[in-house]
Amino acid sequence: MTITLKSPLDMHLHLRDGEMLEQIAKCSSDTFAGGLIMPNLVPPVTTLDELIAYKNRINKATNDNSFKPYMTLFYKPEYNYDFLKSFGDELTAVKLYPAGITTNSEGGLSGFDIEVMRGSLEAMSELGIPLCVHGETNGFVMDREAEFSSIYAKLATNFPKLKIIMEHITTKESVDLLNKFDNLYATITLHHLLITLDDVAGGMLRPHLFCKPIAKRPHDRDALLKVALDAHPKVMFGSDSAPHPKHAKEACGCAAGVFTAPIALIALVELFEKHDKLDNLERFLSANAINIYGITPLEKTITLEKTPYLVPEKFGDVVPMFAGEELSWSLTSITKGDNA
Amino acid sequence: MTITLKSPLDMHLHLRDGEMLEQIAKCSSDTFAGGLIMPNLVPPVTTLDELIAYKNRINKATNDNSFKPYMTLFYKPEYNYDFLKSFGDELTAVKLYPAGITTNSEGGLSGFDIEVMRGSLEAMSELGIPLCVHGETNGFVMDREAEFSSIYAKLATNFPKLKIIMEHITTKESVDLLNKFDNLYATITLHHLLITLDDVAGGMLRPHLFCKPIAKRPHDRDALLKVALDAHPKVMFGSDSAPHPKHAKEACGCAAGVFTAPIALIALVELFEKHDKLDNLERFLSANAINIYGITPLEKTITLEKTPYLVPEKFGDVVPMFAGEELSWSLTSITKGDNA
Repeated sequence: MTITLKSPLDMHLHLRDGEMLEQIAKCSSDTFAGGLIMPNLVPPVTTLDELIAYKNRINKATNDNSFKPYMTLFYKPEYNYDFLKSFGDELTAVKLYPAGITTNSEGGLSGFDIEVMRGSLEAMSELGIPLCVHGETNGFVMDREAEFSSIYAKLATNFPKLKIIMEHITTKESVDLLNKFDNLYATITLHHLLITLDDVAGGMLRPHLFCKPIAKRPHDRDALLKVALDAHPKVMFGSDSAPHPKHAKEACGCAAGVFTAPIALIALVELFEKHDKLDNLERFLSANAINIYGITPLEKTITLEKTPYLVPEKFGDVVPMFAGEELSWSLTSITKGDNA
Repeated sequence: MTITLKSPLDMHLHLRDGEMLEQIAKCSSDTFAGGLIMPNLVPPVTTLDELIAYKNRINKATNDNSFKPYMTLFYKPEYNYDFLKSFGDELTAVKLYPAGITTNSEGGLSGFDIEVMRGSLEAMSELGIPLCVHGETNGFVMDREAEFSSIYAKLATNFPKLKIIMEHITTKESVDLLNKFDNLYATITLHHLLITLDDVAGGMLRPHLFCKPIAKRPHDRDALLKVALDAHPKVMFGSDSAPHPKHAKEACGCAAGVFTAPIALIALVELFEKHDKLDNLERFLSANAINIYGITPLEKTITLEKTPYLVPEKFGDVVPMFAGEELSWSLTSITKGDNA
């Protein structure tokens, strides 16, 4: 039994920089035709020069012309029309982080004053640049995303022409928002389709499954699973794959992030097959993102067959999800198209 | 500024066995006049011989006649009147673990069939032996204790003369039960008076604060704090201090338990002082337990003064709560009474 997937895209990806980028870039470029690259470097990506230089470092690290890094800028309310326009095709989206909410987000936004944001978000609306949002308040850890719903509603209502992507959603409340506001979209990670807080802290504590937003309740996971498996036209796959060295995950203060890039495609095939929804996978992995972002991805066809794959314990110094476990599908071939 | 505490008791204590017992026994015996010793060894304590042998190992490890280990038996539904009576004064309580719910609880109870339990619990009622319960279902980690409420209610109603201690309660639901059933009592840990899930997983993941039951929501913590600070007559201090070696806490699958024994008394003084409730501390730490269990503790007076204490990074191989941090009170003297 085999399956082919055309131009799978990872619409929320952390590739980091420097040595880590070198270690893990191929984990994404091997199996995806492109990825939306998060800008939360230290310091974050806020200028055209930085963005192009980072793109070049990524292309050098992947050394693979069949993988396109779709670049993003770290949101600042002072961005204006001319500044954003100057990026041309180099810029795919702008990513908004509330200050201090996750890894390397210290320079993010404090407060969500619509008037402070108006100039930048109207410019993005006019230029057709989507706003990607890490939607969490600084409230109690299990409530942070649900509490953010009102901010999503405020943004969606005030900027009806702005495409707003609710990144890595983890709650039923966020799923419900998709049908309430025309201009709200979402990415969903692999791990939030699979785990709940029980997997992180219900038995032994499992630091490699600790992430932000934290995995929620079973009914939240079920709501995410439904729209993903149905390939709801407003949801896209975004791994939020976030590599941290092993020692930083298994430590007294463990960093947040699950590293799924190298196994995401295989695990998604397994998941969609289990629910008898394989026919919908290409829409979740590619077609929906093409429609939402209006992009034309590189041609790349991935073929997988149903033979067991033993997930390595580490990629470089990073422990992947399912480390040492067996998945039921394997990659067999990758065909690059003429435009790759 | 000084404070003296008469015969503080830790009514829920894990001293483990073997090398670990040797390492940490004095952390409790130095500052407490006694502790209710949990029986979840491997294998658990289920006979008089085992119980006495364990008591002797504890006394040898503390080498301190001012600390009394109050011994418990691991609950089995087959215990009958004659068996339990044969323990005489050696037995203070019986501890019930749902199967597999926490460290070394594999041999615990499956299901809560009242008729299966009736013989043992009626015998305990007659003999005046309290039943201590780890009250969690195997449901979603944040709901396990609240879901157990109906089992507490069923036990309390079916065995009205049995003293039932809800161990290490963590939720407002459990606090509310105290006033609904005459024969329900509770222990509360230090850490559940201080932390919520936010402290465990809201920022970085902090394995040394990972415990079972897991810390809950702010409104739960506030409910616990209120009855502890008021020294509600049905609540007692029980540290649930649970030592694990450093490597087992900072690992891929981190063991559950917070090690508070060496700093519990100091941290409680600091907490009660902060809330201007120092007058109630001795009741929470001693008088309530004396009334509930009908025990006469060893005479031991602990004096603390308000000078800073730097908590060591480790005791033996175990990392305590507040490791490397400064607390505002220090122990100054311990006076043993004539009966110690």
